[in-house]
Amino acid sequence: MALSEFDLIRRYFSEPSAIRDDVVLGIGDDCALLQLPPGHELVVTVDTLVSGVHFFPDVDPEALGHKVLAVNLSDLAAMGAQPAWVTLALTLPAVDSNWLAAFSKGFSVLAKRYGVQLIGGDTTRGPLSITVQAQGFLPSGSALARSGAHPDDLICVTGSLGDAGLALSAKQGHRLPKTFDLRDVVQRLERPEPRIGMGLELRGLATAAIDISDGLLADLGHILQASGVGGRLDLSQLPLSPPVAEVVAETDGWSLPLAAGDDYELCFTLPSKRLHEVEVISGRLALPIAVVGRIEAGTGLRCERENGTLWQSQFAGFDHFADV
Amino acid sequence: MALSEFDLIRRYFSEPSAIRDDVVLGIGDDCALLQLPPGHELVVTVDTLVSGVHFFPDVDPEALGHKVLAVNLSDLAAMGAQPAWVTLALTLPAVDSNWLAAFSKGFSVLAKRYGVQLIGGDTTRGPLSITVQAQGFLPSGSALARSGAHPDDLICVTGSLGDAGLALSAKQGHRLPKTFDLRDVVQRLERPEPRIGMGLELRGLATAAIDISDGLLADLGHILQASGVGGRLDLSQLPLSPPVAEVVAETDGWSLPLAAGDDYELCFTLPSKRLHEVEVISGRLALPIAVVGRIEAGTGLRCERENGTLWQSQFAGFDHFADV
Repeated sequence: MALSEFDLIRRYFSEPSAIRDDVVLGIGDDCALLQLPPGHELVVTVDTLVSGVHFFPDVDPEALGHKVLAVNLSDLAAMGAQPAWVTLALTLPAVDSNWLAAFSKGFSVLAKRYGVQLIGGDTTRGPLSITVQAQGFLPSGSALARSGAHPDDLICVTGSLGDAGLALSAKQGHRLPKTFDLRDVVQRLERPEPRIGMGLELRGLATAAIDISDGLLADLGHILQASGVGGRLDLSQLPLSPPVAEVVAETDGWSLPLAAGDDYELCFTLPSKRLHEVEVISGRLALPIAVVGRIEAGTGLRCERENGTLWQSQFAGFDHFADV
Repeated sequence: MALSEFDLIRRYFSEPSAIRDDVVLGIGDDCALLQLPPGHELVVTVDTLVSGVHFFPDVDPEALGHKVLAVNLSDLAAMGAQPAWVTLALTLPAVDSNWLAAFSKGFSVLAKRYGVQLIGGDTTRGPLSITVQAQGFLPSGSALARSGAHPDDLICVTGSLGDAGLALSAKQGHRLPKTFDLRDVVQRLERPEPRIGMGLELRGLATAAIDISDGLLADLGHILQASGVGGRLDLSQLPLSPPVAEVVAETDGWSLPLAAGDDYELCFTLPSKRLHEVEVISGRLALPIAVVGRIEAGTGLRCERENGTLWQSQFAGFDHFADV
């Protein structure tokens, strides 16, 4: 990258530049050089956020800096990985110092919280778009893949579902429930918290895991498909905040907690005899978990209402190209 | 990523999906899992190419697939790293099967040539933009950083300089030299060849290295700055193809080989007593090298014509934000 590109990155992203001693060489050469602990595997994920597709062009840049890193750390959490190093490819229409300062603050504060160091990047001119790649590691053989779910495993989720979808709906001008307070849920859309601590604790406990970026139906569907199993969801057990519960109760609108996406909670499967251990961890981390269903032999996913009737999804999760 | 995003990537990029046995888990889970050889450091680089900025919107997609990987592998070459794993973040206005098939062919053929496996990615809808991150490794402590050049080291470059700039000039409709044949040089613009083999051989020989993406002046400038030294270039020793030599001779136009960029040759510094070893390697790899100058104590870079007069640069290399 050219000199002023380097200057640009260094100027706004220098704060987290020396927080890890396994970075042999960080920003400023052709490549970064990193030391992986012996006996560990490297874990890599990448996500792109595009203006007008993944976020509103007028989004708070500090929240955007947070979110673009958070969605990648969420993928590391879903593998049970310890986050370590991140690169940032930033395409900007122009250099706006205030925007960059706010963006880098949101990015850097979250990076620091999880001990993540920015080790490289690229700045280019073009339509606003951000690609982050996050690297972490875990003891060899300990990853939480999608493919390990077994019949009779419990299906669990962290936190609550549907709040980000409700905030998006509010920003799009849709009707809102009476109990809705934008401040309560907009944080869930704009500043999702990656469940890193829970992901680390679930190693050796969960049989499969995924982060809920596209909605529980779509993401649990990935686990079922990769594991070659089916499952049952007990809709009455879904963890819902009061406004989401109100929408569901008024309209039988299960697509909000099941398919709206952007929650960045973890969904994982667990032998029932290990549930108590996870409940202890949940208490220690102050992160609620809910048992929302059970893995079954066969294929497909049934969603049962409390009265035993089945709810049929009309959605399969957010898909950028489904309507092209 | 959602199901059909995964399908999209898998459909067009499945060919190189199983060529490395150090990939524990490739495309299809939350993250990829990779095994780094013991005693090695991880080497990471990332570059973004944006339509209308880095390439013409109507560029041959097969050439684009080649180039976006080549520019990243070139960074690994400049560190002396063995390339291994790559991710691809592809932002597309729409799904165009023919375009994707050609793009993936250019990408995959180059990946296969260097034993590189695609281990993850993200496809999103938006203005055409491509971010590639390449990962490789090298024995701990053997990286070719920019900071190791010493006074009296020779300054060397591989291949020839200015051909990509000449091809770009032709595509922009500028006057061309009489000996110019578009076919001769357009390959150098559209399909640069990363100097991986030379980079690996230079470990333990070169004192500093960089790939020439922004022009020799700018990139050698990075070595001088990082190493705290100055240097002298003998312009008559620059390796030039006949049409580039003709432009230079007619117009004293040294900015073409020195500052036009996109050459993706290696520039490296070398103790003069090691020159013979590099010449032997050059012969074995059939990749010419030229000694174009010498590192000096102090700061700054003097460019001397054959008659001893100094040439003054008006350019400092390509910079995406210099004119914002």
